[in-house]
Amino acid sequence: MEPRSFSQRKADALALLRTPAIDGWVATASIGGDGIARAHLVPLSLAWLNDRLVLALAADSLTARNIAATGAARVAVGPTRNVVIADAVLERSVEVAKAPAELADGYAGQADWDPRTEREPYLFLVLRPERILAWREANEIAGRTLMRGGVWLDDLAGT
Amino acid sequence: MEPRSFSQRKADALALLRTPAIDGWVATASIGGDGIARAHLVPLSLAWLNDRLVLALAADSLTARNIAATGAARVAVGPTRNVVIADAVLERSVEVAKAPAELADGYAGQADWDPRTEREPYLFLVLRPERILAWREANEIAGRTLMRGGVWLDDLAGT
Repeated sequence: MEPRSFSQRKADALALLRTPAIDGWVATASIGGDGIARAHLVPLSLAWLNDRLVLALAADSLTARNIAATGAARVAVGPTRNVVIADAVLERSVEVAKAPAELADGYAGQADWDPRTEREPYLFLVLRPERILAWREANEIAGRTLMRGGVWLDDLAGT
Repeated sequence: MEPRSFSQRKADALALLRTPAIDGWVATASIGGDGIARAHLVPLSLAWLNDRLVLALAADSLTARNIAATGAARVAVGPTRNVVIADAVLERSVEVAKAPAELADGYAGQADWDPRTEREPYLFLVLRPERILAWREANEIAGRTLMRGGVWLDDLAGT
Protein backbone atom coordinates (compact mmCIF):
# COMPACT_ATOMS: atom_id res chain seq x y z
CA MET A 1 0.00 0.00 0.00
CA GLU A 2 1.13 3.55 -0.73
CA PRO A 3 1.79 5.71 2.33
CA ARG A 4 -1.16 7.96 3.10
CA SER A 5 -1.05 11.75 2.97
CA PHE A 6 -1.07 13.76 6.20
CA SER A 7 -4.69 14.78 5.72
CA GLN A 8 -5.75 11.19 5.08
CA ARG A 9 -3.92 9.98 8.18
CA LYS A 10 -5.52 12.69 10.30
CA ALA A 11 -9.00 11.90 8.95
CA ASP A 12 -8.43 8.17 9.53
CA ALA A 13 -7.12 8.80 13.06
CA LEU A 14 -10.11 10.93 14.01
CA ALA A 15 -12.52 8.40 12.52
CA LEU A 16 -10.86 5.64 14.53
CA LEU A 17 -10.96 7.66 17.76
CA ARG A 18 -14.67 8.34 17.23
CA THR A 19 -15.57 4.70 16.53
CA PRO A 20 -18.40 3.43 18.73
CA ALA A 21 -17.29 0.93 21.40
CA ILE A 22 -13.61 1.41 20.56
CA ASP A 23 -11.03 0.22 23.07
CA GLY A 24 -7.55 1.53 23.60
CA TRP A 25 -4.43 0.07 25.13
CA VAL A 26 -3.55 2.36 28.00
CA ALA A 27 0.06 2.32 29.18
CA THR A 28 1.04 4.03 32.41
CA ALA A 29 4.08 3.92 34.65
CA SER A 30 5.02 3.98 38.28
CA ILE A 31 8.19 3.76 40.31
CA GLY A 32 8.40 0.61 42.43
CA GLY A 33 9.68 0.31 45.98
CA ASP A 34 12.98 -0.76 44.43
CA GLY A 35 13.24 2.57 42.59
CA ILE A 36 12.75 0.90 39.22
CA ALA A 37 10.20 2.19 36.72
CA ARG A 38 7.45 -0.28 35.94
CA ALA A 39 4.95 -0.22 33.09
CA HIS A 40 1.30 -1.12 33.37
CA LEU A 41 -0.92 -1.84 30.36
CA VAL A 42 -4.63 -2.55 30.14
CA PRO A 43 -7.35 -2.39 27.47
CA LEU A 44 -10.01 0.22 28.22
CA SER A 45 -13.08 1.61 26.48
CA LEU A 46 -12.51 5.18 25.43
CA ALA A 47 -14.37 8.15 24.05
CA TRP A 48 -13.12 11.08 22.00
CA LEU A 49 -14.92 14.23 23.14
CA ASN A 50 -13.92 17.80 22.24
CA ASP A 51 -10.45 16.70 21.14
CA ARG A 52 -9.88 14.87 24.40
CA LEU A 53 -9.46 11.19 25.19
CA VAL A 54 -11.84 10.20 27.97
CA LEU A 55 -11.37 7.09 30.07
CA ALA A 56 -13.61 5.70 32.78
CA LEU A 57 -11.82 3.78 35.48
CA ALA A 58 -12.29 2.32 38.93
CA ALA A 59 -10.80 4.97 41.21
CA ASP A 60 -8.57 2.42 42.94
CA SER A 61 -7.26 0.77 39.75
CA LEU A 62 -3.51 0.81 39.15
CA THR A 63 -4.01 2.73 35.90
CA ALA A 64 -6.02 5.47 37.64
CA ARG A 65 -3.44 5.70 40.41
CA ASN A 66 -0.55 5.85 37.94
CA ILE A 67 -2.22 8.62 35.94
CA ALA A 68 -2.94 10.57 39.11
CA ALA A 69 0.69 10.26 40.18
CA THR A 70 2.39 10.97 36.85
CA GLY A 71 -0.23 13.05 35.06
CA ALA A 72 0.23 11.10 31.85
CA ALA A 73 -0.59 8.03 29.78
CA ARG A 74 0.28 6.64 26.38
CA VAL A 75 -2.77 5.29 24.59
CA ALA A 76 -2.81 3.12 21.47
CA VAL A 77 -5.87 2.49 19.33
CA GLY A 78 -6.33 0.21 16.36
CA PRO A 79 -4.79 -3.07 15.32
CA THR A 80 -0.99 -3.25 15.49
CA ARG A 81 -0.60 -2.59 11.77
CA ASN A 82 -2.89 0.43 11.61
CA VAL A 83 -2.18 2.28 14.79
CA VAL A 84 -2.91 5.61 16.35
CA ILE A 85 -0.81 6.36 19.42
CA ALA A 86 -1.28 9.34 21.69
CA ASP A 87 0.94 10.67 24.44
CA ALA A 88 -1.55 12.46 26.62
CA VAL A 89 -1.62 14.42 29.85
CA LEU A 90 -4.26 14.48 32.54
CA GLU A 91 -6.41 17.58 32.17
CA ARG A 92 -9.24 16.72 34.52
CA SER A 93 -10.31 13.92 36.84
CA VAL A 94 -14.02 13.82 37.65
CA GLU A 95 -15.91 11.44 39.91
CA VAL A 96 -18.47 9.70 37.75
CA ALA A 97 -21.22 10.31 40.29
CA LYS A 98 -20.55 14.07 40.10
CA ALA A 99 -19.78 14.35 36.40
CA PRO A 100 -21.62 16.91 34.27
CA ALA A 101 -24.20 15.27 31.98
CA GLU A 102 -22.30 16.40 28.88
CA LEU A 103 -19.25 14.35 29.91
CA ALA A 104 -21.13 11.30 31.20
CA ASP A 105 -23.60 11.20 28.31
CA GLY A 106 -20.81 11.81 25.82
CA TYR A 107 -18.80 8.91 27.20
CA ALA A 108 -21.79 6.56 27.37
CA GLY A 109 -22.81 7.61 23.88
CA GLN A 110 -19.59 6.34 22.34
CA ALA A 111 -18.62 3.52 24.69
CA ASP A 112 -20.76 0.42 25.02
CA TRP A 113 -21.16 0.77 28.75
CA ASP A 114 -22.07 3.49 31.21
CA PRO A 115 -19.88 3.84 34.32
CA ARG A 116 -22.81 5.48 36.12
CA THR A 117 -24.20 1.97 36.49
CA GLU A 118 -21.18 0.81 38.53
CA ARG A 119 -21.55 0.44 42.26
CA GLU A 120 -17.89 1.14 43.05
CA PRO A 121 -16.36 4.64 42.76
CA TYR A 122 -15.38 5.38 39.17
CA LEU A 123 -13.55 8.33 37.66
CA PHE A 124 -13.66 9.98 34.29
CA LEU A 125 -10.12 10.90 33.30
CA VAL A 126 -10.00 13.56 30.60
CA LEU A 127 -6.66 13.37 28.81
CA ARG A 128 -5.32 16.03 26.47
CA PRO A 129 -3.18 14.58 23.66
CA GLU A 130 0.17 16.30 23.26
CA ARG A 131 1.54 14.05 20.57
CA ILE A 132 -0.32 11.80 18.14
CA LEU A 133 1.33 9.31 15.81
CA ALA A 134 -0.32 7.18 13.13
CA TRP A 135 1.13 4.55 10.88
CA ARG A 136 0.28 1.28 9.20
CA GLU A 137 3.44 -0.39 7.91
CA ALA A 138 7.14 0.48 7.71
CA ASN A 139 6.61 2.79 4.73
CA GLU A 140 4.51 5.07 6.95
CA ILE A 141 7.05 5.51 9.74
CA ALA A 142 8.20 8.67 8.00
CA GLY A 143 5.51 11.28 8.47
CA ARG A 144 3.89 9.44 11.33
CA THR A 145 3.67 12.50 13.62
CA LEU A 146 0.25 14.14 13.32
CA MET A 147 0.28 16.29 16.45
CA ARG A 148 3.11 17.81 18.43
CA GLY A 149 2.90 20.04 21.51
CA GLY A 150 -0.87 19.57 21.48
CA VAL A 151 -1.22 21.08 17.99
CA TRP A 152 -2.15 19.21 14.80
CA LEU A 153 0.74 19.76 12.40
CA ASP A 154 -1.53 21.13 9.67
CA ASP A 155 -2.79 23.77 12.09
CA LEU A 156 0.78 24.52 13.11
CA ALA A 157 1.79 24.99 9.47
CA GLY A 158 -0.62 27.90 9.12
CA THR A 159 0.72 29.84 12.09
CA MET B 1 -20.42 -16.26 26.01
CA GLU B 2 -19.71 -18.58 28.91
CA PRO B 3 -16.37 -18.02 30.66
CA ARG B 4 -13.74 -20.49 29.47
CA SER B 5 -12.13 -23.10 31.68
CA PHE B 6 -8.52 -22.68 32.80
CA SER B 7 -7.30 -25.31 30.38
CA GLN B 8 -9.17 -23.72 27.49
CA ARG B 9 -7.73 -20.30 28.31
CA LYS B 10 -4.22 -21.71 28.53
CA ALA B 11 -4.61 -23.54 25.20
CA ASP B 12 -6.03 -20.40 23.57
CA ALA B 13 -3.23 -18.24 25.02
CA LEU B 14 -0.52 -20.58 23.73
CA ALA B 15 -2.17 -20.79 20.31
CA LEU B 16 -2.30 -16.99 20.15
CA LEU B 17 1.35 -16.61 21.20
CA ARG B 18 2.39 -19.10 18.52
CA THR B 19 0.39 -17.42 15.72
CA PRO B 20 2.52 -16.63 12.66
CA ALA B 21 3.21 -12.90 12.18
CA ILE B 22 1.59 -12.00 15.50
CA ASP B 23 2.30 -8.57 16.97
CA GLY B 24 2.25 -7.55 20.58
CA TRP B 25 1.86 -4.25 22.34
CA VAL B 26 5.04 -3.80 24.37
CA ALA B 27 4.85 -1.43 27.33
CA THR B 28 8.02 -0.34 29.10
CA ALA B 29 8.86 2.41 31.53
CA SER B 30 11.61 4.84 32.36
CA ILE B 31 12.20 7.60 34.87
CA GLY B 32 12.41 11.05 33.28
CA GLY B 33 14.82 13.83 34.19
CA ASP B 34 11.99 15.24 36.32
CA GLY B 35 11.94 12.04 38.39
CA ILE B 36 8.53 11.06 37.03
CA ALA B 37 7.86 7.59 35.65
CA ARG B 38 6.94 7.57 31.98
CA ALA B 39 5.38 4.77 29.95
CA HIS B 40 6.34 3.84 26.43
CA LEU B 41 4.21 1.62 24.19
CA VAL B 42 4.86 0.26 20.70
CA PRO B 43 3.58 -2.60 18.55
CA LEU B 44 6.24 -5.22 17.82
CA SER B 45 6.40 -8.56 16.06
CA LEU B 46 7.03 -11.35 18.50
CA ALA B 47 7.85 -15.01 18.64
CA TRP B 48 7.12 -17.60 21.31
CA LEU B 49 10.08 -19.95 21.59
CA ASN B 50 10.68 -22.43 24.41
CA ASP B 51 8.15 -20.69 26.67
CA ARG B 52 9.85 -17.33 26.12
CA LEU B 53 8.65 -14.18 24.40
CA VAL B 54 11.24 -13.06 21.89
CA LEU B 55 11.40 -9.52 20.53
CA ALA B 56 13.72 -8.09 17.89
CA LEU B 57 14.48 -4.41 18.31
CA ALA B 58 16.80 -1.71 17.09
CA ALA B 59 19.45 -1.55 19.82
CA ASP B 60 19.02 2.21 20.23
CA SER B 61 15.20 2.16 20.40
CA LEU B 62 13.54 3.52 23.52
CA THR B 63 11.89 0.17 24.18
CA ALA B 64 15.25 -1.67 24.04
CA ARG B 65 16.84 0.90 26.33
CA ASN B 66 13.94 0.77 28.79
CA ILE B 67 14.08 -3.02 28.96
CA ALA B 68 17.86 -2.91 29.46
CA ALA B 69 17.46 -0.42 32.30
CA THR B 70 14.49 -1.98 34.10
CA GLY B 71 14.79 -5.64 33.10
CA ALA B 72 11.09 -5.89 32.37
CA ALA B 73 8.20 -5.31 29.98
CA ARG B 74 4.48 -5.87 29.93
CA VAL B 75 3.32 -7.37 26.65
CA ALA B 76 -0.26 -7.64 25.39
CA VAL B 77 -1.35 -9.84 22.50
CA GLY B 78 -4.73 -10.16 20.85
CA PRO B 79 -7.60 -7.76 20.30
CA THR B 80 -8.75 -5.79 23.34
CA ARG B 81 -11.65 -8.16 24.04
CA ASN B 82 -9.66 -11.37 23.83
CA VAL B 83 -6.38 -10.52 25.46
CA VAL B 84 -3.32 -12.28 26.71
CA ILE B 85 -1.10 -10.08 28.87
CA ALA B 86 2.33 -11.08 30.15
CA ASP B 87 4.52 -9.41 32.73
CA ALA B 88 7.94 -10.58 31.66
CA VAL B 89 11.55 -10.15 32.71
CA LEU B 90 14.62 -9.91 30.55
CA GLU B 91 16.43 -13.23 30.53
CA ARG B 92 18.88 -12.65 27.70
CA SER B 93 19.85 -9.92 25.24
CA VAL B 94 21.65 -11.13 22.11
CA GLU B 95 23.00 -9.11 19.20
CA VAL B 96 21.19 -10.32 16.11
CA ALA B 97 24.44 -10.59 14.18
CA LYS B 98 25.83 -12.96 16.84
CA ALA B 99 22.66 -14.87 17.62
CA PRO B 100 22.65 -18.67 17.55
CA ALA B 101 20.82 -20.02 14.51
CA GLU B 102 18.18 -21.65 16.70
CA LEU B 103 17.11 -18.26 18.07
CA ALA B 104 17.35 -16.31 14.82
CA ASP B 105 15.70 -19.01 12.71
CA GLY B 106 13.05 -19.53 15.35
CA TYR B 107 12.21 -15.84 15.39
CA ALA B 108 12.18 -15.49 11.61
CA GLY B 109 10.12 -18.67 11.35
CA GLN B 110 7.23 -17.16 13.30
CA ALA B 111 7.56 -13.45 12.52
CA ASP B 112 7.05 -12.15 9.01
CA TRP B 113 10.44 -10.47 8.87
CA ASP B 114 14.03 -11.39 9.66
CA PRO B 115 16.06 -8.87 11.67
CA ARG B 116 19.26 -10.36 10.18
CA THR B 117 18.38 -8.39 7.04
CA GLU B 118 18.58 -5.05 8.89
CA ARG B 119 21.61 -2.85 8.39
CA GLU B 120 21.44 -1.19 11.81
CA PRO B 121 22.32 -3.03 15.04
CA TYR B 122 19.40 -5.11 16.26
CA LEU B 123 18.94 -7.12 19.43
CA PHE B 124 16.95 -10.20 20.26
CA LEU B 125 15.45 -9.75 23.71
CA VAL B 126 14.42 -13.02 25.29
CA LEU B 127 11.78 -12.35 27.95
CA ARG B 128 10.67 -14.86 30.56
CA PRO B 129 6.98 -14.46 31.52
CA GLU B 130 6.41 -14.29 35.26
CA ARG B 131 2.70 -13.64 35.12
CA ILE B 132 0.23 -14.31 32.33
CA LEU B 133 -3.38 -13.15 32.31
CA ALA B 134 -6.06 -13.93 29.75
CA TRP B 135 -9.62 -12.74 29.46
CA ARG B 136 -12.26 -11.83 26.93
CA GLU B 137 -15.07 -9.93 28.62
CA ALA B 138 -16.02 -8.93 32.15
CA ASN B 139 -17.25 -12.44 33.02
CA GLU B 140 -13.69 -13.73 32.56
CA ILE B 141 -11.97 -11.29 34.92
CA ALA B 142 -12.30 -13.90 37.64
CA GLY B 143 -9.85 -16.67 36.87
CA ARG B 144 -7.81 -14.56 34.48
CA THR B 145 -4.45 -15.47 36.02
CA LEU B 146 -2.86 -18.36 34.12
CA MET B 147 0.74 -18.05 35.35
CA ARG B 148 2.18 -16.67 38.55
CA GLY B 149 5.83 -16.55 39.59
CA GLY B 150 6.77 -18.02 36.22
CA VAL B 151 4.69 -21.17 36.78
CA TRP B 152 1.47 -22.12 34.98
CA LEU B 153 -1.16 -22.49 37.66
CA ASP B 154 -2.07 -26.03 36.56
CA ASP B 155 1.56 -27.06 36.99
CA LEU B 156 1.62 -25.34 40.37
CA ALA B 157 -1.50 -27.21 41.46
CA GLY B 158 0.30 -30.53 41.12
CA THR B 159 3.23 -29.57 43.32
